[in-house]
Amino acid sequence: MENTYIENASLSSSSREQYAPWIALSLVAGLGNTMLCQLLLLLKSPEAILAASYAELRDTVSKDVAERIQRAMEHADIAKALDWLEQPDNHLITLADLHYPRRLLETDQPPPLLYAKGNLQILKRPAMAIVGSRHATAQGETTAENFAESLCRAGLAVVSGLALGIDGAAHRGALKADGATIAVVGTGLDIVYPAKHKALAHQIAQHGLLLSEYALGTPSINYNFPRRNRIISGLSEGCLVVEANVDSGSLITAKLAIEQGREVFAIPGSIHSPVSKGCHALIKQGAKLVESTDDILSELRHIRLPNASLADSPNGLIPNWTNLPSEASPVLACMGFDPIFAEQIAARSGLTPGEVSTMLTLLELEGLVSHLANGQFQRLA
Amino acid sequence: MENTYIENASLSSSSREQYAPWIALSLVAGLGNTMLCQLLLLLKSPEAILAASYAELRDTVSKDVAERIQRAMEHADIAKALDWLEQPDNHLITLADLHYPRRLLETDQPPPLLYAKGNLQILKRPAMAIVGSRHATAQGETTAENFAESLCRAGLAVVSGLALGIDGAAHRGALKADGATIAVVGTGLDIVYPAKHKALAHQIAQHGLLLSEYALGTPSINYNFPRRNRIISGLSEGCLVVEANVDSGSLITAKLAIEQGREVFAIPGSIHSPVSKGCHALIKQGAKLVESTDDILSELRHIRLPNASLADSPNGLIPNWTNLPSEASPVLACMGFDPIFAEQIAARSGLTPGEVSTMLTLLELEGLVSHLANGQFQRLA
Repeated sequence: MENTYIENASLSSSSREQYAPWIALSLVAGLGNTMLCQLLLLLKSPEAILAASYAELRDTVSKDVAERIQRAMEHADIAKALDWLEQPDNHLITLADLHYPRRLLETDQPPPLLYAKGNLQILKRPAMAIVGSRHATAQGETTAENFAESLCRAGLAVVSGLALGIDGAAHRGALKADGATIAVVGTGLDIVYPAKHKALAHQIAQHGLLLSEYALGTPSINYNFPRRNRIISGLSEGCLVVEANVDSGSLITAKLAIEQGREVFAIPGSIHSPVSKGCHALIKQGAKLVESTDDILSELRHIRLPNASLADSPNGLIPNWTNLPSEASPVLACMGFDPIFAEQIAARSGLTPGEVSTMLTLLELEGLVSHLANGQFQRLA
Repeated sequence: MENTYIENASLSSSSREQYAPWIALSLVAGLGNTMLCQLLLLLKSPEAILAASYAELRDTVSKDVAERIQRAMEHADIAKALDWLEQPDNHLITLADLHYPRRLLETDQPPPLLYAKGNLQILKRPAMAIVGSRHATAQGETTAENFAESLCRAGLAVVSGLALGIDGAAHRGALKADGATIAVVGTGLDIVYPAKHKALAHQIAQHGLLLSEYALGTPSINYNFPRRNRIISGLSEGCLVVEANVDSGSLITAKLAIEQGREVFAIPGSIHSPVSKGCHALIKQGAKLVESTDDILSELRHIRLPNASLADSPNGLIPNWTNLPSEASPVLACMGFDPIFAEQIAARSGLTPGEVSTMLTLLELEGLVSHLANGQFQRLA
């Protein structure tokens, strides 16, 4: 894939001079990605845009924007961004960098400048977006976490949006594997939103990668989040929706993924659950119904996965329980597939609470049962 | 649709002479539907087959079968079947009858003789098969019952196999509406299998219709059940699978439905539930994912439904609860979408057990909550 925006794209050095023009242009109010990309296609470099005559600029942009471009290098926040860049693990990625993500470059209007914090190597991996409701069920979060861990072990990077619910669970799952997760956020990278995910964001910066197209200091603004979604899908080979309401932002991401030619995957659930309705709508529209990571990996056969063969990937979602001690089966039989309290299992099975507790611990260790946050247990296989 | 097997098909009278040849041929050991249909195409009537020369018969069938056909009218069970026919509500339907089900006639090798008990008028209705696991969950049975009731009210007949689990629930749901349900059984009609469904079979005989291609006295034989499934799908415009394991007989019915050019519908569920795996496999293969009866009815727009418009059909599955009193919402909010005991709701909501009980009764009356057989409550919307 050639970079049509910049001729002779090169590996970036960390020199302040190299980045200042990109930062300056990204800070020009009213100069969106579309117009900046157009100017780059015309004038070939940010330096050339900054040096262009007013008349040249006016061919593409409005009077106000043209004037602001000519004064762009005076912006006080340029120095602030360059100072941020000098801190460890902070990076800027411009359209001129060879390690600008290839998949994102293929999309319409790729963001010309990305702020990044963490391990840039992760951008070399093929990636899968995992998104879903902020108001997910406990089961949905467990599912997102398991899928993310399993896909990560299979050699993919997991991309999501650091939101509460499914997004956070996806990042946590990838962190349980080797941490190859990318959080694309809708604020400046010096701000963590939501605040609840401060520790998670810190972990991602250490082991994974935080990405933003927004200038430092940009607060959480509602309309930035849907825009951010096109980067999530743009970075990825496909997009897995775990739980989503019919009016969920996740469906925007799925729609963008389809427009970008990405495969959309969705996990089904009960027809009585509102957070499955978005997934069901996607499946009706042609998204692939997904029960296990194999359903995703089989669609990605054309992609070379870097550090793991499919055979190595533990299918943590569908464990084999035929080898379990026979004492476990009455407990499993009493559980059904809905969350249940240990007391209910004891009442149903006739076992003592102690016996049930021992067996649940064993089953949890074997990955057959999950202990939910509300104290209930959920059978997983 | 012309009847290619019989020229001048006529409304049946109940004369013993008319049915004896059909019964006689159906009792010939080794003469399957395929060969009997071939003989009918060649010789045009059962009387002609019985009067055919040995040489004529040998063109189509083996030595033994030819000899048995020539002695067919001597079979003692012919009188037994004719005596059965004289009892109220018992009927025989032959390929020569004008009310032989049209959809079944279009299939390969339609059964030449059907034993029927109940209301033959139901055969005039467009029908939908509802099938699924014998080992269904309580939720699955409720779903089957609700869909059957709703489709029946929309003017369809509900066809199933009288088995435990989903089949029985489908029949029960249709009986809650106007009873337009057809149970296609794998035994002789004088035998009820499974014995647990004796009362249900009796109700179906009173309000719906029992059908069998097997001679009276035929016990439950395993290999007859998959054969019976082709009649279930053959009678129907489409086939809805509610819950099914991957190795379920329901998938055989779905496969036959596809071969017969029928639409297949499947209800999704948790990826952790074994009884949803069959449905998910069908959806992956192209079956339509179904969340409500509207998803089915919208595919059947080309069919004229006899006694109800779609607008009349109460969508009992997705009730609108925005108009409920505000007192109900804390109870609903505490319930989640998994089955739960009233005591748990009280503990979660802080309401008294009495308040919870009142609210649950109200919600049940509104169709928003279902009271399960095990005493738990299930939120439905």
